[in-house]
Amino acid sequence: MRITFLGTGGAGGVPLFGCECRACCRARQEAVRVRRPCTAWLATPDIRLLLDAGLMDLHERLVTGAPDAIFLTHFHPDHVQGLFHLRWGRGKPIPVYAPPDPEGCADLYKHPGLLDFRVCRPFEPMVVGDLTITPLPLLHSKLTQGYAFEQAGGRRFAYLTDTLGLPDDTLAFLQAWGAFDMAIDCSFPPGKPPRNHNDLTMALELADRTRARTTWLTHVGHELDLWLETHSQQLPKNILLARDGNHVLID
Amino acid sequence: MRITFLGTGGAGGVPLFGCECRACCRARQEAVRVRRPCTAWLATPDIRLLLDAGLMDLHERLVTGAPDAIFLTHFHPDHVQGLFHLRWGRGKPIPVYAPPDPEGCADLYKHPGLLDFRVCRPFEPMVVGDLTITPLPLLHSKLTQGYAFEQAGGRRFAYLTDTLGLPDDTLAFLQAWGAFDMAIDCSFPPGKPPRNHNDLTMALELADRTRARTTWLTHVGHELDLWLETHSQQLPKNILLARDGNHVLID
Repeated sequence: MRITFLGTGGAGGVPLFGCECRACCRARQEAVRVRRPCTAWLATPDIRLLLDAGLMDLHERLVTGAPDAIFLTHFHPDHVQGLFHLRWGRGKPIPVYAPPDPEGCADLYKHPGLLDFRVCRPFEPMVVGDLTITPLPLLHSKLTQGYAFEQAGGRRFAYLTDTLGLPDDTLAFLQAWGAFDMAIDCSFPPGKPPRNHNDLTMALELADRTRARTTWLTHVGHELDLWLETHSQQLPKNILLARDGNHVLID
Repeated sequence: MRITFLGTGGAGGVPLFGCECRACCRARQEAVRVRRPCTAWLATPDIRLLLDAGLMDLHERLVTGAPDAIFLTHFHPDHVQGLFHLRWGRGKPIPVYAPPDPEGCADLYKHPGLLDFRVCRPFEPMVVGDLTITPLPLLHSKLTQGYAFEQAGGRRFAYLTDTLGLPDDTLAFLQAWGAFDMAIDCSFPPGKPPRNHNDLTMALELADRTRARTTWLTHVGHELDLWLETHSQQLPKNILLARDGNHVLID
């Protein structure tokens, strides 16, 4: 199972439009520091999945065709905005698994085009290709769920964004799941009380409590990038800062 | 007054994701044929305006800073989706003039960030910089208005998308306005009865009835591009097919 972080930024990305902080200025100079909206790609020998759809040039990136399915964590624009354009394309319907949010986002439900929206519910595992996928409730300002992906042979990966903390039942699931790696929302540096998203303190605490093997921090804002410029040595060895384009191989 | 068509495509753009028609295949080979979502730039010595905000990489294109104001024709995603990201930026508030649509699009009203939404009403002219700008009602599936831009010296340009036909009062305004150029919705080739957008037959009829000096066709879909590959000689001399990047100088 191979995961590629296509976008690791928060809603405003890095660089943030008009921001002159050092992290944003560096991102304008060094492409490797750019953070686009949260989107990931998960591939196994059997199946290719898109996790969220915040990237706005999805229709141009998917040159080898549509994914076999899309899994949405929630319907905030920075997680679905790539679908506004993609939906009008030609081809087979694309299954889009999403939490049971009656609102969706803008007119996606009204004009789904290529998209075949399917509700999936917390803790009801689905088999898709060679994966068993379990939706896990998260704690955010809109109905949100992460996903636990399990492949034969004990290969496990959890994708947990956007969230501030984790509900008890999600935590209990992960603690009982066996060895796994995860990507988790880590938007802010430590300091101010976080809103709707983890700060680094909370993300580290969750990495510890879930006992994840390796934790990738994603949905990263420019303030965290700025803070990490002088504090990156403080990250434990099993905590990695995701960047756009990073691959994770779960074997 | 100089207008630049930044995007001249319909909702799905050209090439359309997954489409193998000749127009879409050519657009994949020749960048000049790509049509991105409808967006234009209007600049005078005094002021720089963005007309609609469908381009999804607006925050990356606006390297010289924000426009002085944004004018939205309506709140369909393909006309506002570039704002989802831009709004989270830093800097002065950006005035965004829009029709009095209580819904807006997704959570733009709830979380406007940088955007300072202002309602402007049909036939109530505003003075912005060295321009007098008059909103003109259009006929579309969502509350939509075009804009008539007038600069001293009789320089006039009307931006009229999305629409199918024109309401009588808009037509009467244009017929009484004096010499002007315009850009108008022309999504489809002639043939099928058009829905929500002009086909070429209707666009030509409106060019004739409004007596516009030069008419630029915009919001063009792949089927019209395909049709024009073999019929472009049928366009009257004062009807021009807009392409992304085209400039119009009104002097």
